[in-house]
Amino acid sequence: MSILKNFTSLEDVSDPVALVDQVIKCKSELQNREFAKGLSFVMLFFNPSLRTRLSSQRAAQLIGMDSMVLDVGSGWPLEFELGQVMDLDKSEHIKEAAQVISQYADIIGIRSFPSLKDRNLDYSEPVLNAFLEYAGKPIVNLESGTGHPLQGLADMTTIREFRKTEKPRILLTWAPHPRALPQSVPNSFAEWTLSQGYELTIAHPEGYELNPQFTEGANVVYNPEKAYEGIDFVYAKNWSSYADYGKISNSDPRWMVDQQKMLITNQAYFMHCLPVRRNVIVRDEVIDSKQSLVIKQANNRTFAALAVLKNIISHMNT
Amino acid sequence: MSILKNFTSLEDVSDPVALVDQVIKCKSELQNREFAKGLSFVMLFFNPSLRTRLSSQRAAQLIGMDSMVLDVGSGWPLEFELGQVMDLDKSEHIKEAAQVISQYADIIGIRSFPSLKDRNLDYSEPVLNAFLEYAGKPIVNLESGTGHPLQGLADMTTIREFRKTEKPRILLTWAPHPRALPQSVPNSFAEWTLSQGYELTIAHPEGYELNPQFTEGANVVYNPEKAYEGIDFVYAKNWSSYADYGKISNSDPRWMVDQQKMLITNQAYFMHCLPVRRNVIVRDEVIDSKQSLVIKQANNRTFAALAVLKNIISHMNT
Amino acid sequence: MSILKNFTSLEDVSDPVALVDQVIKCKSELQNREFAKGLSFVMLFFNPSLRTRLSSQRAAQLIGMDSMVLDVGSGWPLEFELGQVMDLDKSEHIKEAAQVISQYADIIGIRSFPSLKDRNLDYSEPVLNAFLEYAGKPIVNLESGTGHPLQGLADMTTIREFRKTEKPRILLTWAPHPRALPQSVPNSFAEWTLSQGYELTIAHPEGYELNPQFTEGANVVYNPEKAYEGIDFVYAKNWSSYADYGKISNSDPRWMVDQQKMLITNQAYFMHCLPVRRNVIVRDEVIDSKQSLVIKQANNRTFAALAVLKNIISHMNT
Repeated sequence: MSILKNFTSLEDVSDPVALVDQVIKCKSELQNREFAKGLSFVMLFFNPSLRTRLSSQRAAQLIGMDSMVLDVGSGWPLEFELGQVMDLDKSEHIKEAAQVISQYADIIGIRSFPSLKDRNLDYSEPVLNAFLEYAGKPIVNLESGTGHPLQGLADMTTIREFRKTEKPRILLTWAPHPRALPQSVPNSFAEWTLSQGYELTIAHPEGYELNPQFTEGANVVYNPEKAYEGIDFVYAKNWSSYADYGKISNSDPRWMVDQQKMLITNQAYFMHCLPVRRNVIVRDEVIDSKQSLVIKQANNRTFAALAVLKNIISHMNT
Repeated sequence: MSILKNFTSLEDVSDPVALVDQVIKCKSELQNREFAKGLSFVMLFFNPSLRTRLSSQRAAQLIGMDSMVLDVGSGWPLEFELGQVMDLDKSEHIKEAAQVISQYADIIGIRSFPSLKDRNLDYSEPVLNAFLEYAGKPIVNLESGTGHPLQGLADMTTIREFRKTEKPRILLTWAPHPRALPQSVPNSFAEWTLSQGYELTIAHPEGYELNPQFTEGANVVYNPEKAYEGIDFVYAKNWSSYADYGKISNSDPRWMVDQQKMLITNQAYFMHCLPVRRNVIVRDEVIDSKQSLVIKQANNRTFAALAVLKNIISHMNT
Repeated sequence: MSILKNFTSLEDVSDPVALVDQVIKCKSELQNREFAKGLSFVMLFFNPSLRTRLSSQRAAQLIGMDSMVLDVGSGWPLEFELGQVMDLDKSEHIKEAAQVISQYADIIGIRSFPSLKDRNLDYSEPVLNAFLEYAGKPIVNLESGTGHPLQGLADMTTIREFRKTEKPRILLTWAPHPRALPQSVPNSFAEWTLSQGYELTIAHPEGYELNPQFTEGANVVYNPEKAYEGIDFVYAKNWSSYADYGKISNSDPRWMVDQQKMLITNQAYFMHCLPVRRNVIVRDEVIDSKQSLVIKQANNRTFAALAVLKNIISHMNT
């Protein structure tokens, strides 16, 4: 059994395989609306959210947990440095902010996207870590600068449900996109896939190497086609460069997932976290095929959040 | 008994008179908070809402249904065409969007205003119809490009409560407004009134004819005063032109509802869906009179939504 | 026992000491989730809110009351004058707005900040008073142009919990701030402190006198240091000028609360309503000390709202 105190990254999870077991179990159980009665889940969105917000709020509802959603956006300019004279644009210090939210929450969910400008800042996870330091309540990552573990857990659940062998071969392939996107989803997908003991290949153009802390043990290739041979699951995702931080250096459509490449695989399933740009990331023929798991991934988001909330609540006063 | 699978327009309603009966019944019953326990009502607002949002959410609460409200506004640029290369501003295809929302909802409510620029587009109801096609869950129209059936049902309930005869004479009168407004409310009021077997006169300046699909059977007049003779209910509303689509060609204050015109009626009640611009649409002397039903209409919005939700839920797994 | 019909200002409270008793009692009781079952709390935010919103919604949840939160911001331009021809920017009259919200609410909470431009307008409390006149439902002030009574009640609860004598000596000290802030919090703190029979000193630069209706009985001093002698509680807050309405005429850092001044006191506690600008209003050394009560004040916000809601509900049909 995996015991969660927080769920901010894979590092909070002692047994990632057992946690997927728990998600699968949640799907088949009738949930008890009294389980979390009287407890409060406050979700803070520093950036917009659709899937994560609905699936997490739904998970809370299924166990009778009260939820409060706060879109703080850019309207809550927080100071993170200690010792500052706050006479400019920052109106509240994270030290008070985190402690105050804690007064109204039993669990705090936080979405905070990266700047994609300052790599050291983004990868230091200032918002998550400040809440971990000051809030004194369990923290759930609703997608941060470096990771999206609820997506990772939902994806591992989907793979578990559709894998044909104990050790499927997974391909995470970069694909083009007109805007610079965070590395959060590919970082989490890579480390969660490796945590399950699966075989992972990551394919991307040169210059798009992910932070090695998330990919150790993966096979990296720079060819958009060869990587598909013998693959059981193709996970497509765009991300901006980690090395030349936040930049786009490639828009080659040969990296798009199409039927021709899928034919090279071992009748692979297609996965994407959504939203997806059709005929840029993936051709209609693939996402509309029977092998596409994208909606099942979205469905599993609720149960990933449910398992995380139930796990945290079970160990809250222990 | 009227059986609802969806509630996107009057066409979804097999027996519109019986549905008004159900609303009246809902008003007198003590609601059972266990009725919809565990079910989820997701409301998507592509445009702002006050009355519809509060009344629909309240209806869900009264039967113990979980609700989630999402203001998607302009921040969710959706692609509706199939086969597009989505490399510009559209970040998600409606096909995924609708299926994803369905994973977190048992019933989906949608507000989506018309552009008032492209009549064919607006009257094809792209958002509602895409959700009907892809979502696989019951859809409730929270006001769309061509109709506002929850308002229509609430209005019919109000007329039922105050009518003195089985076949009251109803006047829907256009009134001036400084901005171009949709035809949704007058379209729905016209077709719902006709569906109840009532006698309907529609008065408006020339060029403001509504789409005939909603008004067949109504008497159309172009005079702002004569139409009031013998009328039992005066329903005022502005709309922009259907023929010269979305345009304003008239601002004649003689179309405003005032006491002098009301004196011509059969002691008629005054109705409006709100919000209303006082002394532009209607004079204070009328809206502040005892004959004004506007607040009762607003009150009936909750029970219209309640009857619709209960009806849909009752037939969800049949 | 203090009986509340509304909670818009201290004037609504017959026994302010007894109301603090009720808050203290709420903190120690297990709340009954059936207490307010079926009732609806609609919160209207004409301005942003974090603490007030979360604490009030949490209070409603604790007694099983349904809540609906509406951020109306600037998107709901209301007309307040009677008899106007509404052909410009105002799309709804407060008379309809208030009555309509009432159809969906059993209690209405309203946040409406002052303009800080027109003193007579702000101090006439147009939004609160229009809702009191037209809504016909109990109104709770979630911070208005002239007061923030939920903050005042939470502050009195905090003082009650930490006072060492029956009649502690309280200092409300002005402190600098780069932006013009309302007088709502200091007005309420002053009148609530006096209502408890405590000894109140108000320190501020000349020209920052508060409206005397809130400060009668307080000792006013214009020196940033002398006022600290013998004080038990130091409450820091910035406000803009009441005399030269909404203006800032002083930014002297000698008014900041620091350790040196705190040493003059009777081992005083430090209080602030938050958010607070560190090293502008108060030095880190004070807000980070054991004498700082700011987080406890934030915690008491929930119980102040809880006591108010319970009190109003208890007397709703009497």
